[in-house]
Amino acid sequence: MIKRNPEFIWNAWHVAALSHEIDADILFTRRLLDVPVLIYRKQSTGEAVALHDRCPHRFAYLSKGVRKGDQIECIYHGLRFGTEGQCTHSPYQETPPTNATVQPFPLVEKHKMLWIWMGDAELADPTTIPDHSHMDRDDLRPLLWHYHFNGNWQLGNDNLMELTHLFFLHTSTIGGWKDEPGKVPGEQYTVRKDDSGRVISRTFVPNVAEHGTFDNGVPRGTPFDQWNDTIWHAPANMRFTMGAVPTGQPTESCAQPYMEQSHCITPETATTSHYFSGFTRTFELDRDAAGDQQFIDFFSGIFAREDGPIMEDIETQMDGHDLLAQNPVVLPRDKGAIMVRRIVAQRLAAESALQAEAAE
Amino acid sequence: MIKRNPEFIWNAWHVAALSHEIDADILFTRRLLDVPVLIYRKQSTGEAVALHDRCPHRFAYLSKGVRKGDQIECIYHGLRFGTEGQCTHSPYQETPPTNATVQPFPLVEKHKMLWIWMGDAELADPTTIPDHSHMDRDDLRPLLWHYHFNGNWQLGNDNLMELTHLFFLHTSTIGGWKDEPGKVPGEQYTVRKDDSGRVISRTFVPNVAEHGTFDNGVPRGTPFDQWNDTIWHAPANMRFTMGAVPTGQPTESCAQPYMEQSHCITPETATTSHYFSGFTRTFELDRDAAGDQQFIDFFSGIFAREDGPIMEDIETQMDGHDLLAQNPVVLPRDKGAIMVRRIVAQRLAAESALQAEAAE
Amino acid sequence: MIKRNPEFIWNAWHVAALSHEIDADILFTRRLLDVPVLIYRKQSTGEAVALHDRCPHRFAYLSKGVRKGDQIECIYHGLRFGTEGQCTHSPYQETPPTNATVQPFPLVEKHKMLWIWMGDAELADPTTIPDHSHMDRDDLRPLLWHYHFNGNWQLGNDNLMELTHLFFLHTSTIGGWKDEPGKVPGEQYTVRKDDSGRVISRTFVPNVAEHGTFDNGVPRGTPFDQWNDTIWHAPANMRFTMGAVPTGQPTESCAQPYMEQSHCITPETATTSHYFSGFTRTFELDRDAAGDQQFIDFFSGIFAREDGPIMEDIETQMDGHDLLAQNPVVLPRDKGAIMVRRIVAQRLAAESALQAEAAE
Repeated sequence: MIKRNPEFIWNAWHVAALSHEIDADILFTRRLLDVPVLIYRKQSTGEAVALHDRCPHRFAYLSKGVRKGDQIECIYHGLRFGTEGQCTHSPYQETPPTNATVQPFPLVEKHKMLWIWMGDAELADPTTIPDHSHMDRDDLRPLLWHYHFNGNWQLGNDNLMELTHLFFLHTSTIGGWKDEPGKVPGEQYTVRKDDSGRVISRTFVPNVAEHGTFDNGVPRGTPFDQWNDTIWHAPANMRFTMGAVPTGQPTESCAQPYMEQSHCITPETATTSHYFSGFTRTFELDRDAAGDQQFIDFFSGIFAREDGPIMEDIETQMDGHDLLAQNPVVLPRDKGAIMVRRIVAQRLAAESALQAEAAE
Repeated sequence: MIKRNPEFIWNAWHVAALSHEIDADILFTRRLLDVPVLIYRKQSTGEAVALHDRCPHRFAYLSKGVRKGDQIECIYHGLRFGTEGQCTHSPYQETPPTNATVQPFPLVEKHKMLWIWMGDAELADPTTIPDHSHMDRDDLRPLLWHYHFNGNWQLGNDNLMELTHLFFLHTSTIGGWKDEPGKVPGEQYTVRKDDSGRVISRTFVPNVAEHGTFDNGVPRGTPFDQWNDTIWHAPANMRFTMGAVPTGQPTESCAQPYMEQSHCITPETATTSHYFSGFTRTFELDRDAAGDQQFIDFFSGIFAREDGPIMEDIETQMDGHDLLAQNPVVLPRDKGAIMVRRIVAQRLAAESALQAEAAE
Repeated sequence: MIKRNPEFIWNAWHVAALSHEIDADILFTRRLLDVPVLIYRKQSTGEAVALHDRCPHRFAYLSKGVRKGDQIECIYHGLRFGTEGQCTHSPYQETPPTNATVQPFPLVEKHKMLWIWMGDAELADPTTIPDHSHMDRDDLRPLLWHYHFNGNWQLGNDNLMELTHLFFLHTSTIGGWKDEPGKVPGEQYTVRKDDSGRVISRTFVPNVAEHGTFDNGVPRGTPFDQWNDTIWHAPANMRFTMGAVPTGQPTESCAQPYMEQSHCITPETATTSHYFSGFTRTFELDRDAAGDQQFIDFFSGIFAREDGPIMEDIETQMDGHDLLAQNPVVLPRDKGAIMVRRIVAQRLAAESALQAEAAE
């Protein structure tokens, strides 16, 4: 039995890897929710599967083993396991030991990502995977990449539920166009929770005169209303939508957001996290592969030099303690982040209660 | 509220930095008593101030922020704070939140050092700052510098309350002139405690024939009596005085010690320490800046290769435990160190008792 | 008093060092059973002695001190200690303090290794040192060397009580000659415990056609029976014997095993270990020193790249927990390893009980 660290939400879909990280031959290993996970594709079908990366005999990492068709042979004493985790061969026995099993995890490939369910397998329902379907729009040139940061996964939610930090942390990169940061006339920040437990925060800014870095679909010279939505889905999967329309027109008249981002964070340990990021766009679609790579390098660089370090600093300052328990000052624009923190706290408490019950 | 580690004396002046470390523009950060502290100079007056280096909103380091005149703007979401720690501006609010405060620390610049009081501010009395006034004697060419060592701060007291180790640890540098280390005829080691709680240890050696490395003011060829005093002031601020007179003359006839050193140690964490060191002299006053730097390099090198490593070794051997609790062998010359250890233990116990009372 | 970590067997002989590691002048230090140990040779006789590497005054490492004949002078304040740990000189006292003693450890040089007894000295009986007398056979060119691995010492026992892993972990080096790993007709694996508490596991393979890498004494072309024995002696000292005879002849007719190995593991800490390894041989005895060094490099390289990393992996996976407590799958060939684990567990429990009794 895998010991469940109560700082993580187990009964949920987490991104385990990006589709392109798992090629046909690799025995890929990644620590997720503080558990080593082996991910690889069946040679027979290409379907990706996930197993606890630990042989039940002497605990060697199976990812250091050898592929035998769809199966994995342990490097240490040669036990072989199938994609469901069952032992299929033991070199010095006629029949493999029936208790030699490796825990498999439900794994679903969707929206160019691999979603894993590490809690109770019977609860894993693929229809509840968060909607990041913009990533299926190949005409919008989806780009995806992987970061890592030295901080608790919830810091990713805090960072993204509103975007004030754009104008302070990112002034030298993507947030420097505002002369005097702060509320502009008519600016609205709203937060709502929908029926499926998602939290959606919106920042709406009317009548903007100057265009930003990227073409937003409104002709240059025309004043516009712009907004960005953060659609949060537990535990830490966020879809960003950025739209604009000529000033005064209904936001619904925006046929296609000019940019949609995915920000999916999965705990590596309690104090380190994986960050799967990506976006689609309606501008500069004529870039070649090198041009697209420049986009990735640009955003990765911002994360590496600005967001990543600040989250690491906060982790250091918190020193393993919960953020809310430290009585932080709460600002008006923290409404979304605090709502998310509370939902997460409820989910964690509910899972801990179930675990305690199961242990009785 | 800052959590007070009971291994440190909080209601006392500690050296936070040397004056020359804090130039006009720097947002200087240093961990002191296991608390990150921001130190900077007001642009208006040049006065140095100290704040807890932690924004009360999301806990970013304020030292990574931006100066706005005398104030500091947080890099993450733009909260601004004055030198007393009060929030003066919040970008998305008309009036800043009144509960958004950063803890300020009393800071006094004296003897070319910045003295901080991290305990109860109402007890901070600048007249109790230890006397290192030799550092104000610019005619004696004061030199100051900063070390760091991987050991508990009290090891600094142990190291300096008597100087036997000069003839063993430092034989290849400053202590190698004695052929056979040990007591010489007439040598006296005395320790006394004065009314203000200081401990003064003296080593007096009469009738020395050979001069050491540095000119002690007695003409070469004349036998002399020499002494060195260590004046300890809690928690770990020591002034060394080295004097000499022609043999038989009263020590009071020494108009000016030929060397006076400052050794001020401030905890960084329970197992690492800052060490502020410096000296004045009556010899070789004609050195130019490069020559003075050679003095600093010489003493720094001795610390880096001899004192620092031995304190790190002892810290490793103690493994977080108290030295006295490990029942060390006590030698006659440990009288000063043991007296200091006991005073420190009393101070720590008294502060812990007050903290416990306050918590009730 | 040294605190005894209950994860180690204290009342037993452990290898502290190889004879050739301790030359005439060295003050050698090594952490053994989580205790720093000073080992050096008396200048008067060349006899090796072992002391707790810790001055009882301020806890400096004595190994950083200076030799004074057979004695050691502490680098910090000049206390001197004899080979029995008694203080013989204190610079500022007429007579050295009688309570200034360093714990000595019984140390015996045998089979080109130095065996230390870190438990109750009165129980140390040199006649119970494990038999590695093949190392005394200079005609068989004994070679010895030292490894280090980041894992609990018991993993060394697990690794060596049977050799299945040869055909999986070592396929690219010493175990690659078997086309299809697994039991061959007539192969037998047996384990027995002898009267002196040793565990001997044997793998016997009859009627082998193809010779391996090394000449086993049977003429090439002649089918042979071969075996290897692992003779385990608590805590983790193993002697390997590899023999071969023409098929059908009694194993006793083998006058001399063609290879005998020593594998002696000593805890450094609970999660890191020293590994003293070596072998004698009947083949390729005409190698020169460079050729012998190639043997050492070959075996060291296998350990460094294959055995060492897998033990480090397992240590990581166990995360400080006991292997048996984690309910590992047990295979038929684990009989020897499990028997050893159980004997070790009994020894550890017995020592803990005695310690608890002594503490009352």
